[in-house]
Amino acid sequence: MVLRRIESGIPGMDDLLNGGIPIRNVILLSGGPGTGKSILAQQYIYYGLRKGEPGIYVTLEEHPVAVRENMINFEWDPRPFEEQGLFAIIDGFTGGIGKSAEREKFVVQDPTDVRSLVDTIREAIEYIKQSTGKTPIRGVIDSVTALYLTKPSAARNIVLQLKKVFSGYGITGFFISQVSVTERGFGGPGVEHAVDGIIRLDLDEIDGELKRSIIIWKMRGTKHDMRRHEFEITNKGIVIYPDKIVKKRKT
Amino acid sequence: MVLRRIESGIPGMDDLLNGGIPIRNVILLSGGPGTGKSILAQQYIYYGLRKGEPGIYVTLEEHPVAVRENMINFEWDPRPFEEQGLFAIIDGFTGGIGKSAEREKFVVQDPTDVRSLVDTIREAIEYIKQSTGKTPIRGVIDSVTALYLTKPSAARNIVLQLKKVFSGYGITGFFISQVSVTERGFGGPGVEHAVDGIIRLDLDEIDGELKRSIIIWKMRGTKHDMRRHEFEITNKGIVIYPDKIVKKRKT
Amino acid sequence: MVLRRIESGIPGMDDLLNGGIPIRNVILLSGGPGTGKSILAQQYIYYGLRKGEPGIYVTLEEHPVAVRENMINFEWDPRPFEEQGLFAIIDGFTGGIGKSAEREKFVVQDPTDVRSLVDTIREAIEYIKQSTGKTPIRGVIDSVTALYLTKPSAARNIVLQLKKVFSGYGITGFFISQVSVTERGFGGPGVEHAVDGIIRLDLDEIDGELKRSIIIWKMRGTKHDMRRHEFEITNKGIVIYPDKIVKKRKT
Amino acid sequence: MVLRRIESGIPGMDDLLNGGIPIRNVILLSGGPGTGKSILAQQYIYYGLRKGEPGIYVTLEEHPVAVRENMINFEWDPRPFEEQGLFAIIDGFTGGIGKSAEREKFVVQDPTDVRSLVDTIREAIEYIKQSTGKTPIRGVIDSVTALYLTKPSAARNIVLQLKKVFSGYGITGFFISQVSVTERGFGGPGVEHAVDGIIRLDLDEIDGELKRSIIIWKMRGTKHDMRRHEFEITNKGIVIYPDKIVKKRKT
Amino acid sequence: MVLRRIESGIPGMDDLLNGGIPIRNVILLSGGPGTGKSILAQQYIYYGLRKGEPGIYVTLEEHPVAVRENMINFEWDPRPFEEQGLFAIIDGFTGGIGKSAEREKFVVQDPTDVRSLVDTIREAIEYIKQSTGKTPIRGVIDSVTALYLTKPSAARNIVLQLKKVFSGYGITGFFISQVSVTERGFGGPGVEHAVDGIIRLDLDEIDGELKRSIIIWKMRGTKHDMRRHEFEITNKGIVIYPDKIVKKRKT
Amino acid sequence: MVLRRIESGIPGMDDLLNGGIPIRNVILLSGGPGTGKSILAQQYIYYGLRKGEPGIYVTLEEHPVAVRENMINFEWDPRPFEEQGLFAIIDGFTGGIGKSAEREKFVVQDPTDVRSLVDTIREAIEYIKQSTGKTPIRGVIDSVTALYLTKPSAARNIVLQLKKVFSGYGITGFFISQVSVTERGFGGPGVEHAVDGIIRLDLDEIDGELKRSIIIWKMRGTKHDMRRHEFEITNKGIVIYPDKIVKKRKT
Repeated sequence: MVLRRIESGIPGMDDLLNGGIPIRNVILLSGGPGTGKSILAQQYIYYGLRKGEPGIYVTLEEHPVAVRENMINFEWDPRPFEEQGLFAIIDGFTGGIGKSAEREKFVVQDPTDVRSLVDTIREAIEYIKQSTGKTPIRGVIDSVTALYLTKPSAARNIVLQLKKVFSGYGITGFFISQVSVTERGFGGPGVEHAVDGIIRLDLDEIDGELKRSIIIWKMRGTKHDMRRHEFEITNKGIVIYPDKIVKKRKT
Repeated sequence: MVLRRIESGIPGMDDLLNGGIPIRNVILLSGGPGTGKSILAQQYIYYGLRKGEPGIYVTLEEHPVAVRENMINFEWDPRPFEEQGLFAIIDGFTGGIGKSAEREKFVVQDPTDVRSLVDTIREAIEYIKQSTGKTPIRGVIDSVTALYLTKPSAARNIVLQLKKVFSGYGITGFFISQVSVTERGFGGPGVEHAVDGIIRLDLDEIDGELKRSIIIWKMRGTKHDMRRHEFEITNKGIVIYPDKIVKKRKT
Repeated sequence: MVLRRIESGIPGMDDLLNGGIPIRNVILLSGGPGTGKSILAQQYIYYGLRKGEPGIYVTLEEHPVAVRENMINFEWDPRPFEEQGLFAIIDGFTGGIGKSAEREKFVVQDPTDVRSLVDTIREAIEYIKQSTGKTPIRGVIDSVTALYLTKPSAARNIVLQLKKVFSGYGITGFFISQVSVTERGFGGPGVEHAVDGIIRLDLDEIDGELKRSIIIWKMRGTKHDMRRHEFEITNKGIVIYPDKIVKKRKT
Repeated sequence: MVLRRIESGIPGMDDLLNGGIPIRNVILLSGGPGTGKSILAQQYIYYGLRKGEPGIYVTLEEHPVAVRENMINFEWDPRPFEEQGLFAIIDGFTGGIGKSAEREKFVVQDPTDVRSLVDTIREAIEYIKQSTGKTPIRGVIDSVTALYLTKPSAARNIVLQLKKVFSGYGITGFFISQVSVTERGFGGPGVEHAVDGIIRLDLDEIDGELKRSIIIWKMRGTKHDMRRHEFEITNKGIVIYPDKIVKKRKT
Repeated sequence: MVLRRIESGIPGMDDLLNGGIPIRNVILLSGGPGTGKSILAQQYIYYGLRKGEPGIYVTLEEHPVAVRENMINFEWDPRPFEEQGLFAIIDGFTGGIGKSAEREKFVVQDPTDVRSLVDTIREAIEYIKQSTGKTPIRGVIDSVTALYLTKPSAARNIVLQLKKVFSGYGITGFFISQVSVTERGFGGPGVEHAVDGIIRLDLDEIDGELKRSIIIWKMRGTKHDMRRHEFEITNKGIVIYPDKIVKKRKT
Repeated sequence: MVLRRIESGIPGMDDLLNGGIPIRNVILLSGGPGTGKSILAQQYIYYGLRKGEPGIYVTLEEHPVAVRENMINFEWDPRPFEEQGLFAIIDGFTGGIGKSAEREKFVVQDPTDVRSLVDTIREAIEYIKQSTGKTPIRGVIDSVTALYLTKPSAARNIVLQLKKVFSGYGITGFFISQVSVTERGFGGPGVEHAVDGIIRLDLDEIDGELKRSIIIWKMRGTKHDMRRHEFEITNKGIVIYPDKIVKKRKT
């Protein structure tokens, strides 16, 4: 049985993953503020779009307009792909309120209600299927943390429900998990064990200087690099250095 | 009195256990995300099946279909044994919802209700007895943590109830305990003291590199190795190195 | 696309920010007591006023009169600018009680109610627009912490609402986040991820002496210096030393 | 006044206790999972039985049948002494449910109710008095922790009530206190101060190897050794090495 | 603008404060038990009385009689000044119960009610104004902690209310904040940010010996010494050594 | 003014206290289990009795009979003094239940009710006054912790009430504060600041050996030794070594 893999499109990352992300894996992308989680996820989506792989991006933390702007900043303009029906941004931020929200195609009416979120995700997926004849290959939820920030005991349940949607359609992708700058975990035991993979982005102050690093903690269905690597955020997006091992960390 | 032991089937493990797991012991298999708990448990079950020892696997974290796929990934195809009535997967995940769930034989209607879970386990055991004339020898619950994640004060009680079922039928096996990546305990005092043995799998970052190790913390009824050993997850499953002692750990 | 930037007006700071703050960014200005957060924010506002850029300052921790006095202490007299309608202090402190409060133009009737606060902010912005024909360029909320001190689970929601107002009008500025002297985070995960940038001011006791330092943890839309720098509070305000790196910190 | 002492029967232990346990002392026997608390307590009881000293053993964590099996594993068969009425196991585990429970003489109907537990203990003591003409000399409650796991604020009160029963009859013995593997205390302030003595069993990982050690923290009415000693669990039970001091511990 | 300053009257302290406390500042005087907070505050008050500056002392932790006795111990007899109407002790301790309480002039009927406390403070201030024609210059609340010990979420609010009274009358002085011996903060984020200055007194065990030290953490409106200094409690009160820097502390 | 002092009667202790305990001071005697708090307090009481100074001992943790036995163990027989009316044990332990309780003179009917406790203390004091014509000089409450174990927010209030009784009668003595073995504080901020002095007894494991030490943290009205001293519990009670400084401690 040959494992199908999805290329991440992040320079250096597929080397760490033995060729790419095992298909259908849902990966927790965990990190503190400013670590580059959204950038990595958008870069992953855009790489797919350029190859003709449909994608969805659920935005719960920012206005869809801001997501597009951020992507354009890196020269990853998603708008042509949205127009082709290859890409959909699911707006879980505005609740449909505001002028620019009116222009959004997929708006979650009540983002605090997971069922309502799931329905809108399905709607976007069906739209892409109709437009392109293909199910989305790549997906991102930015972030799952927003969904259970005030009800941590519901975390595992919410993550499982969303994972079920992704698996159901065969989508491979990232659930972004925001952790506090002081927190070493990945988002709590309920979440950490519910996903197929865990990738951690870190920003650590070492001798007065901030250093970025990435480590793959877990990846179902494949061997993966077991070391912490340096990475940078360039104006073309994230670049991981498979040869630069980061040994020292803040504690 | 000669102690009967169950061979673990994990290369290297029986050396640490003075020949195998004392019969009827229920072992807490504790570890963070990505440490290989489910793999170890499935390897243990499959080894028994190949020897003609019936087994049960209670899945509370993943779809039964995903469990089969994971096992097939390691070339431990459980389906022929399910057909012979030698092996049963108890589905505590789907609640019977979804198409593929309809094909499952043993579905816990309400996985949040321990009594309902216990009833389905008994049903599966009786089925195996009828099919093969033998009670299951090996059993796994993956994971017990899922059962009390949102009600920690019930943990000890739930673990004791499930242990009573296993002991009642003379089943030897593992209760998987998920701990957070930052947690050094095994799942709380109520759980740690309720079981016959504790085995811990660890994944620690040491100088920028992830290292796997295993330690047997407690095993009723036998002497056991008291050292921390390196192990690997190969594409044939877990291999423990009784000669490689891991001295240094993350703190 | 050329990024528009706002000059901070803090000597040394724009060097760290690659020229200035990317326009429309809302920055969490986080620090313990005595670190100089309000001074930095007032210096930022006054610099703009001198250049003809309108500004607003929401005061939730101190009487508007005390804010003016503090600014005058540094020779940043805001009163002429208030008279011109270029600057507005929004009084979220007095609730309109007291004689001097009667003289304030923009008084939040119920500072514990975010909607009431948002309304008064909008009122002040509209007033500036009418007086000067320009929307405010710079804004400060001192502090957001006061708004959720007794209801931490509401923090993210409150910060997002206020950020929406600032973005809506294209205001660039600071949300001051007060952390306890012993706390290493920036104000909790909900807040840290909701903003466009994070700047941290620190006051650390090192070998019996208090040392001030600043670090830019995150800044959307621009490269920024990644090192911790020494700064001073002089009688002309804050001066940052881009050449003095602080390596050692209290832990 | 010459102090009467009870020999512990644990090789090496009476040396540390200046000859034995001062009569009527109730000792908290505290330790994490796998440290050997139950073994030590059963060895203490059996040593007395062999000398003709009656004893009671309250089992709250395990089935009475499992207690007997564990003792037989160490060649401490308690059954002849039960038949003579010199020894009684008080079953606080089954609640009287199950076939083998029917064969138990002393069953606590509701183990969560301390009064019901106390009544059954008294019943067992009276039975021993009638059978042998002697009050029990030795007693064990395994464990007291089980009684307040879900209601920690009741801990002190429960321990005091049980201690009152033991003192009332002049019984010397152990209250087993289960602590989590990561916990350095003995079971909380309420419990630690309510007993006459505290003995701690530890299992620490030092440089990748588990080491057992024992320390007497407190013992009313006698001088005692103040050092941490190595001990082993052999197939004849616990052996303490008064000459081997353990200096290094996990922290 | 020349800053008016209040001389602290504590030998060595004004050197650290660039000449004295900026007028109208309310300073949090924070420290563990036994650090000398009340002594410092009483010394500050008495110094003013001797210069003819009226003062008030709110006592919430001790009987007014005990406050007088403590002051007399250091030869700071406050009674003549009370008789002249230059000094008032506000009794927030007795609730008016007890014989000696009957002799007190200013008794807070319900010390748990801040409004009632504020009213009595105002009453005392008005009394001093009538007796001497001057508003009090110096004031102390010993301690503010007592007011929110059982309701920490009210802390900021209570401190702000009291500060408003002091500022309203132009009083300069200390709010005593009691912290636990193990606590490194100053009394919580709500309190730390609400005051104009923070001075910390410490008592640390270093190599088996208790050492006293003082550090000024924050002082609005003035430069101040940024180092930790040794101090002593002599029988004439506190003496600070501006030349002795304390580098080493307990952690 | 010459300070009256009470001799502690503990060999070595008065040296540390500059001659003795300042009269009327209520001292928090804080320590973990097994540190010797009760022994020190009983030794203090007995020393006074031998000199003709009346005393009271409130026992909340142990049966009055056990208190007498413990004292007799050290050859401090209190019974003759009880008969003379010079000494009273206030039984806050039995609630009047049990045969030996019937023989007690001063029984607190409801020890969980502080008012009832205070009444019985007053009763005992009045009895001593009538028998001997003298008010008690020395007093002990063993322990105050028992009074607020399950309601920590009431701690300060309870301690203040009891202190008021002691001060009212001019009694000098100890309030015993039990802390957990892992706790470095003295019993919480409310308690630590409410007393006149704090003495801490410690039992620390250093390199595998338990070491006893004492330190005076605070003592109102007198200079005191600022160092940590070794002490022993001999069969004649506690002996403090003013010349042996303990520098190293467990952390």
